Formats: sequence, C-alpha cells, structure tokens
Amino acid sequence: MKSFLDIDPKSDFPIQNLPYGVFSTANDADKHVGVAIGTYVLDVTALEREGLLDDVLQGHRNVFNQGVINPFLALKNDIWSAVRKKLQTLLSIEDETLQSHDALRERVLISQQNIQLHVPVKVNDYTDFYASKNHATNVGTLFRGKDNALMPNWTHLPIGYHGRASSIVMSGTAIQRPVGQTKPKDADQPLFGPCQQLDYEYEMGFIVGYGNALQNPIDVKHAKDHVFGVVIVNDWSARDIQAWEYQPLGPFLAKNFATSISPWIVTMEALEAFKTAGPQQDPVPFDYLQDPESDNSFDLTLETYLKPAEVDVPTMIAQTNYNSTYWSIAQMVAHHTITGCNLQTGDMLATGTISGKTRHERGSLMEIAWRGSEPVQIGNVTRSWLEDGDTLTMKAYAENGTYRIGFGEVTGTILPAQS
Amino acid sequence: MKSFLDIDPKSDFPIQNLPYGVFSTANDADKHVGVAIGTYVLDVTALEREGLLDDVLQGHRNVFNQGVINPFLALKNDIWSAVRKKLQTLLSIEDETLQSHDALRERVLISQQNIQLHVPVKVNDYTDFYASKNHATNVGTLFRGKDNALMPNWTHLPIGYHGRASSIVMSGTAIQRPVGQTKPKDADQPLFGPCQQLDYEYEMGFIVGYGNALQNPIDVKHAKDHVFGVVIVNDWSARDIQAWEYQPLGPFLAKNFATSISPWIVTMEALEAFKTAGPQQDPVPFDYLQDPESDNSFDLTLETYLKPAEVDVPTMIAQTNYNSTYWSIAQMVAHHTITGCNLQTGDMLATGTISGKTRHERGSLMEIAWRGSEPVQIGNVTRSWLEDGDTLTMKAYAENGTYRIGFGEVTGTILPAQS
Repeated sequence: MKSFLDIDPKSDFPIQNLPYGVFSTANDADKHVGVAIGTYVLDVTALEREGLLDDVLQGHRNVFNQGVINPFLALKNDIWSAVRKKLQTLLSIEDETLQSHDALRERVLISQQNIQLHVPVKVNDYTDFYASKNHATNVGTLFRGKDNALMPNWTHLPIGYHGRASSIVMSGTAIQRPVGQTKPKDADQPLFGPCQQLDYEYEMGFIVGYGNALQNPIDVKHAKDHVFGVVIVNDWSARDIQAWEYQPLGPFLAKNFATSISPWIVTMEALEAFKTAGPQQDPVPFDYLQDPESDNSFDLTLETYLKPAEVDVPTMIAQTNYNSTYWSIAQMVAHHTITGCNLQTGDMLATGTISGKTRHERGSLMEIAWRGSEPVQIGNVTRSWLEDGDTLTMKAYAENGTYRIGFGEVTGTILPAQS
Repeated sequence: MKSFLDIDPKSDFPIQNLPYGVFSTANDADKHVGVAIGTYVLDVTALEREGLLDDVLQGHRNVFNQGVINPFLALKNDIWSAVRKKLQTLLSIEDETLQSHDALRERVLISQQNIQLHVPVKVNDYTDFYASKNHATNVGTLFRGKDNALMPNWTHLPIGYHGRASSIVMSGTAIQRPVGQTKPKDADQPLFGPCQQLDYEYEMGFIVGYGNALQNPIDVKHAKDHVFGVVIVNDWSARDIQAWEYQPLGPFLAKNFATSISPWIVTMEALEAFKTAGPQQDPVPFDYLQDPESDNSFDLTLETYLKPAEVDVPTMIAQTNYNSTYWSIAQMVAHHTITGCNLQTGDMLATGTISGKTRHERGSLMEIAWRGSEPVQIGNVTRSWLEDGDTLTMKAYAENGTYRIGFGEVTGTILPAQS
C-alpha cells in the first residue's frame, strides 16, 4: 500500500496508520475531523460534505460535522473498517480521485503546520486502571513498603478507579502546578501550598467505540470489538497531595487538575499488525477475565522525554514497551462491565502507568528517581520531581521493517502555582 | 404566597418549592422540563414555547426544549431567580394568566399521574464525598477496626472520589444484583458470583449550575452560587465486592452498577428558608475551606423505608437530619476546585452517606445492621443486607409551620443477579 503523497519512511503517519484527530484552521474555526497522513491532515469532514464517503457511511449523515469523533465511533466496526479502506483508497497512488484533481485535493489535504488540534473525543467517563504489575509493585513499595507492595487482590482483577473527565486536555496545554494539602513525614499538622512532588504518569488510553446497555455486561470474547482506538495519556499526579488524601477512597485532587492526551486516535485496526503476547498471568484469571486472544497485547515502544527550561534539548529519560502491561484491554472492558455497568461511546479506559522491569523502563518520575532518593541527571541539572518550566513529552510508536505506526506526542510545560 | 391550585398542606410540592424535573407523556414522547406543583407538573417547556417566559429569559432561546435541564443551569443565578418568580406568579391566586384561561392552563398543567419522569440532568462528572463524620467513623470501624476508624486526613479535608456518571438512573429503575469477585474472611482464594452484601447509601446530590474554567479555583465565598439544586441519591453498594477491591484506589465495581436519583431537583432558593448550622468543625479548616456562612447546612429530614417482597407495607428503618453532615457544600466545591479542577454545568457532587449518631439515624444497612451482626426486624422477616425483591425508598423534606419543601422519593427494587 503506497500513497501518492511523498511520505518519509520514518513518519508516524503512513497510509497504514490514518489516526483520527479534530482540527481547525486560521480560516475556519469550525472543528473538523481529519486523519493524519505524512505531514498533512486529510479533512474527513470535507470528504463527507463532498459526498465522497456516501458509499461507505451506509446512509448515515452528519457523522463528521459535530466537532468531535463520537458520532462516528457509535457506528460500529464494519463502518469504521469501510471508512478506513475508503480513506486509504483515496490516498493511494493507484486512485485518481484526489491525485488528479488539484482543486479538490487542495480543499481536503491541509498541512499539519496550518492546523490547530483539539481534544478529538467527548469523554463521558474516564476510568483509570492500574494494569502494570511493575508499576503497582514500585508504587506499593514506595507508599507502603516492600512487604505490602502488591495488594492480594492485584493479580486477581484489574484494579481501577474513576478519573476526572472534565479536565482532560489537549497535548500542548500548559499545566499549572496545583496547590493543596500535604503532610510531610516530619510535620505534626498538614500544610497548604504548592505541590512539591509534581509527577507525570505514562499511560495508554483506549477510546470506547460503542458501549453496552446497563445490566448487560460485555463478554470478554467480544470486548475488543467495543474499542475504537488508542491515545497516549499523561496522568499528571501531585504525589504529596496524593499521599495525604488517598485513604480510604483513592486519588482525587492529586489527579483532577489535568490529564493530557495525544491528539491522534490510532485505530485498533492500524495496530492489528503489531499484536503480541502480554505477560503470563498467574494465577489463571476467573472465566469472565479469560481473554480468548493469546496475542492480546501490542509491541509498542513508549518513550518519555524531559526538557528542563535551562537545558536546550529534551532528554529521553525512559523507554519501555506496552507489552509489559499485565492486564489486556479486553480484560479491562470485561471487568468494568461485569456488574452491569454501562460503557458509552467516547469513554476512555486508561491503563495506569506502564513500567517495565528496569529503571530506564519506568513510567513515572517518582519511580525513576525512587521518590527523590535517586534523582535523574539531565545535562547539568538533576530532577526528583517536575519543576516549573519543565516540558514533559511522551511518544509512542510501533515499527516493522516497512512502516511505523506513530502516535505523535503528548507534551506539556509546567507553569508556576497560582499566587 | 398561595396558588390558585388546591394543594394539600402536606404536599411535597407547594408553590414555595417548584422543583425541576424532566417528563414525557403518553401523547408526547418529547422530554419536557417541568416543575412539580401539588399533584401537577407545570410544563415549563410549553410556557417557553407560548412566549410566557420571554420577559425573564433575557433573550435566551430554546432553553427548555433540549430534554435535560442543563441549558437552564448554565444561565446563572439571576435568571434562575427570575424564572422561579415568574413561575410562582403564574401559579399564584393573584394572577389571571393561567387561572382564567382554561385552554392555556390545560395545555401547561398536567397531572403527575399522566407523566413519565426521566433523569432531569445530563451529569458529566459525578463526585462522591464522604462528608458525614458519623458514617466515616462507622465504616472505618467496620472495615479497619475502631483504632483506625477515622483516617488522620478526615477532619482536615472533605475526602471524596470520582463516581461513575453513566449508570446514574431514575428513581423506579429496578436494580439488578451485581456479580463480581469477593473474598470472604475464611476463604483462601477469592470467589466469583452474585453479591451477598448488597446495600444502599442515603446521600444528597448537589447539581452544579455553572462551573469554572480550568486552573481557576472557585473561592469558598462564592462556591454556593455555583450550585443550582439538590436531589436524593441512593448510591447502591456491593459491600463484599468493595471490601475485596477497594485497596489502594478506592471503590470501583462496588458502586458502578447503578446510582439512583430522585426525579425533582429542589432548588437552593427553595431551601433558603431552612438553612441552619452544621456541626462545629475541629480543627478549624484551612482558609480555603472557611465557609463564610455560619448557617451553611439545612434542616432536612431524611427517611429510609424498606419493603421486603413478603411484607405488605414499607417500614421506616432510619430517620436522620441533613444538618449532621460535617462538610458544607461550599467547602466541597472549594476543595474540589482548589487544584484548578474545572466543574461543569450538570456535575453532581454527592455528600456520601449521611448518618446521625444513633442506630436509627444511620444511612446504610451495613451501619444499621452493623455488618450483619445486628439484623433489622421488619414485620416477620429480618435483614442484614438487601435481598431480591426488596424495595428501598428514600424521602426527604423540610418543614416549617406553614409549608413543606419535599423531594418526592427515590425508590428501587432489587432484581436477582444475571444467571
């Protein structure tokens, strides 16, 4: 499969990817749905208006003109596939529709330099899991000591909790250091002030395509069908606020101030070629959690870059692989709904921080710098926690010898706390 | 203030109340906004269409024709007040508009017997607090023993967590007993099957009128202005699932299968006459939590009724007062947003279970029956937990010598687990 566009072989966005985003331009403030292709975005909203998607939308109308991708997600897998194939055809070197019609092509292919990206999906409910065993073990060790690191429930079910949906923001949004209550170990009383232990968490966020009716759990066998695609998630975390507030009901203010996502939703179809096995599960899970697919994980490289204000270039401080994640997305969906809970179009199910075994594979600064005891060296400076002016960037990609399925990036710079 | 309608002095819905709901009728499946008045609902959507609200909506249009109350909530306090006054005028014995025009009156006043009620508000994010000290102490004692009952953080901040918004359902919805993992004390391994410890939680849910921009906390001094009204919330809880899953990230499946709310949103304005002081707070909270209002609670009677299938009439198993709630709604709003988290129109902030000091004032069956050790006697049967066929109903009201501000009720019957 080859596009008529000249695409760098190292581009995140070959014709095999076509991740969905929502954008506007200086000339048109309306939010359009598009797919990334090389250095361009293909304007899917415009294609629908031109009638070029009529044959694949099966009579559905106004699917792409609502400023978010939700109406398309609700249409289910066969239409997702048909639209994907159609977009690949339109971009193919073997098709003349765009290639040979300059005016049309110029209307629907826009340079990514000329667009502003927006949160592509209205997230109704955001659930955050805790699906990486290495991460859960690290955090448990840091918060509760080695003997209570992994709770007895952890290997039996995908632990998760509800996150805050309203504060999901687009990559690039500056992150204000939160203020709140903390209680340092040596203090008699809690303190109030700016967070002193600001952190990030590298997660992947699965976007639900279509959900289930209340009281109708999704069987693990069909669970993956309900998932449309994936984004990178930075679940910014105020560790000192978290340590003081989290018992007994879990993290609340420590995570509610912002959650950044990458702009492009990479489809499950694009990732199909990179399926691989996840970790062996021991004990064998209950039936309702038995994923029928043995290759139920993905071979995805996850990279974290930190650029302090006083350093010129970002430094890669971690690199790991998604395939270290213990619980699969099908298991997370099945577990979430086993009580009869309903998922809805646009819900986001995030994995929780993904950490590999070694220090360089850890998905949060707390883990890399081991709660401040082993600061990270970056150029001439060290970091135990994020400081004002720091820019944190996450990238993700899958590669084979032929092409690369990239996620672009999610980035954010830390602003000082409100005065 | 007196209505031209004949209203029972014990009605929940005098002219001083006018709580908002969303309803449809057998003749019109469209969802209309209405206010309850005596045994009728006044069709506010129809009034807007008739042009009767033009003078108070300040140029806003299509406020009440969107099937939920959210567009009205977003309009802020002065318009809420103006509409309320206008509806009171239209229903007043001193006004001729409806009283003397039979055809118009018959179009806009509908018997509550002929309507179906729907969830009145699109809840984007649902936050559940833990604001009753008696409840937190009871649960802490039951789950962790007397010595660790109240966590050290509890008296310093309103503990809360994110709830599941998608499964908020209307009063009357039957509740299917959830299935899930549990680990009885005497078991080596977890079990999978129907919940054996199904419970309810009596809470009040505050509905956010208009929110705040990200990174702009709401000052406690203005926090109450952001709140439109209140509903009764039954936060159904699977205690055995909760005990096994809740560490370290808090309740998840134990609460995500259903949360029932009462159909009528009682406005903060209607409750103004019933303000009263809450409990003394010790220690004095941080400045950002200092509620400027000393009468920052409400004198509201909260009643819980249980009717097992084999018993003919509901039995009141608990009665308490809202004014026992430790943290005020202004404190909850200020705390929620102090990090910069944004609230949005339609968010629901629930109090958590409200329990008074004595056994008969407790807000959950777990507390009343002390985790099964002191079962409740109802007619010829006993209950430690909810059983299939049980109907649980909550009512709330404020009363003075002249009138009663009632909430109606939230009710639900337990269905057997899926087979």
